[in-house]
Amino acid sequence: MPNEQDTISSFLARVEERSRSFIGYPASKDFNYEELFPFLHYNLNNIGDPMSTSHCDMHTREFEQYVLQFFARLFHAPQNDWWGYMTHGGTEGNLYGLFLARELYPGAMVYYSEATHYSMQKNIHLLGMPSIVIRCRQNGEMDYDDLEQIIQHYRHKPAIVIANIGTTMTEAKDHVPMITNILKKYAIRDHYVHCDAALAGPYLALLNHDNFDFRFGADSIAISGHKFIGSPIPCGVVLVKKSNKDRISRSVSYIGSYDATIAGSRNAIAPLFMWYTISKLGKEGLLQRALQGIALADYAIEQLRNVGIEAWKNENALTVVFEKQSKTLCSKWQLASDAEWSHLICMPGVTREQIDDFVADCTMAKKEEEVVLEF
Amino acid sequence: MPNEQDTISSFLARVEERSRSFIGYPASKDFNYEELFPFLHYNLNNIGDPMSTSHCDMHTREFEQYVLQFFARLFHAPQNDWWGYMTHGGTEGNLYGLFLARELYPGAMVYYSEATHYSMQKNIHLLGMPSIVIRCRQNGEMDYDDLEQIIQHYRHKPAIVIANIGTTMTEAKDHVPMITNILKKYAIRDHYVHCDAALAGPYLALLNHDNFDFRFGADSIAISGHKFIGSPIPCGVVLVKKSNKDRISRSVSYIGSYDATIAGSRNAIAPLFMWYTISKLGKEGLLQRALQGIALADYAIEQLRNVGIEAWKNENALTVVFEKQSKTLCSKWQLASDAEWSHLICMPGVTREQIDDFVADCTMAKKEEEVVLEF
Repeated sequence: MPNEQDTISSFLARVEERSRSFIGYPASKDFNYEELFPFLHYNLNNIGDPMSTSHCDMHTREFEQYVLQFFARLFHAPQNDWWGYMTHGGTEGNLYGLFLARELYPGAMVYYSEATHYSMQKNIHLLGMPSIVIRCRQNGEMDYDDLEQIIQHYRHKPAIVIANIGTTMTEAKDHVPMITNILKKYAIRDHYVHCDAALAGPYLALLNHDNFDFRFGADSIAISGHKFIGSPIPCGVVLVKKSNKDRISRSVSYIGSYDATIAGSRNAIAPLFMWYTISKLGKEGLLQRALQGIALADYAIEQLRNVGIEAWKNENALTVVFEKQSKTLCSKWQLASDAEWSHLICMPGVTREQIDDFVADCTMAKKEEEVVLEF
Repeated sequence: MPNEQDTISSFLARVEERSRSFIGYPASKDFNYEELFPFLHYNLNNIGDPMSTSHCDMHTREFEQYVLQFFARLFHAPQNDWWGYMTHGGTEGNLYGLFLARELYPGAMVYYSEATHYSMQKNIHLLGMPSIVIRCRQNGEMDYDDLEQIIQHYRHKPAIVIANIGTTMTEAKDHVPMITNILKKYAIRDHYVHCDAALAGPYLALLNHDNFDFRFGADSIAISGHKFIGSPIPCGVVLVKKSNKDRISRSVSYIGSYDATIAGSRNAIAPLFMWYTISKLGKEGLLQRALQGIALADYAIEQLRNVGIEAWKNENALTVVFEKQSKTLCSKWQLASDAEWSHLICMPGVTREQIDDFVADCTMAKKEEEVVLEF
């Protein structure tokens, strides 16, 4: 029976090896949080509301507040009317946004596009809300005509619209002003727009190419922390309007704090990770990372097209979409695929060498396929 | 402006200092996961169902499966009919159990005692389920007469009963056979028992003092990993009957895996932590830790009583309940309190010296109070 040390070293070697071909999922790879590892010797827990105090001092709330403040500014949250917390990932942030919307507008209809992440449907089901799926355009963006048509039919109901700021498969962005214009046109005053900005939210805002933030009509925004910022443990941020949130809080004497979060006990290490990267790189450093990723994605498209593989991407996207590749290739490069397409994502830390190696593999697979067809 | 390194070292010193008086919350302190820190350089994520395979290889599912298997055996889950996953904490496990129960029995009434953790009410509200709060006995255990009285009134509805296996304040245990007997007596066939065993589940089972597991009528059990096992990051385990779970799964092509979890993206480091402790200590080592904690709790009661402070505990509990202490003392020792009582918890890693120091502080505070009263 191998002891723990042997198991650890052989598993670590495997992880290291597989990380070299990890270009199919949206996770930045350029972090190093070694300096923060000593905190993993303690029982840290950010249970409850990050903005309030507690009897329990084993937390990292100051760091969490720093992270929240950073994103509140980045997304132009109303200055004295925002609240948020660090979640265990994008799904929890989306669940929180939806929950808040349901509390504000009971009986509302939820609208979301067919390119929406599958977890949204799970969340909607959990919350027991009625919903309608909206068609997508070819690039994965919501079909606003379809949205308008359907909203016309349900003018008697409050409307909750989910906007995708970077869909899972093609990184398409739904246009929040287009959505709010439709809501305005049909005089649907009781409405709520939640942005699932898990992937693209942070860098679109850094690029000043956001048209989804609080200025444009978002009532809440959820992002992932382990995607663009980078973290070895999934985490996220959800931001909402404080006045809305205050309606669903609940005072609890046990932790000496108001708990408005879904999770209760919360990872207190992730806020340190987020703080570290944001503080080290600053807005400018983060922006440069985004620009490098976009440039690398353009490069990948060029290389794929050069070898005769159809490839494309949405504007400002890190996600490169291309003809679905073979099972072997998808497995080696850990590529996510749907019926028609595969994709790779040029997250910070993905290198030009990896793209070259991948394209070389595609070329070889294509040649083998042609040989087979010739026979 | 301090740089990141200065901020880290001063914060680390503060955490170290505050950890010395951390006896009020249920978190084991005797872990050292240093050997596993190298994994924090990678993008690990246990997204989706831990039992299935995925295109994405950056996960620790084997370790998660080991942990699940360990607890499935410990809690006598039906051999070929169990399923589970590692959650981000007790709350998510309870939410999953409740969700499953709601799907199986739409329109059911949820019964839970007034000593139930506040997050349960939050979960019930999230899921939009009707519920009734049951009175408690003085020790924090459910008043079964009250449960019986109320269930009589609602015989026409399926029943979902939450059993607390270690309440937050007094670590009281609800008796699952008593609950199932009541359900049987009134012939409520459509019933579901979920055990919130966050705190006490693991060691009660190790002590062979469990009367809450699958053999006794539990349909699902949720535990915390950062409590008795110990982890610097909140985590947990939820176990259910596989046949029940299969009814709420959903296939998703994106991650090449069935996702039946609430969270979606999941912490893949926590399973390594859990595996490490379980594998290193084994059942016997874990049992010894529990026995030491119980002995220390007995010692704490003796010491508190010696200085004239009323103190008591439930059977097999690590939680010592005593007269509510002053704000200063609660703040220094990070004690959770309700209107009447404070408590400390003799989790693995709490030392006799800490108990002695705490009792000395209590004695001093008591004397000061007496001096004030004399004047």
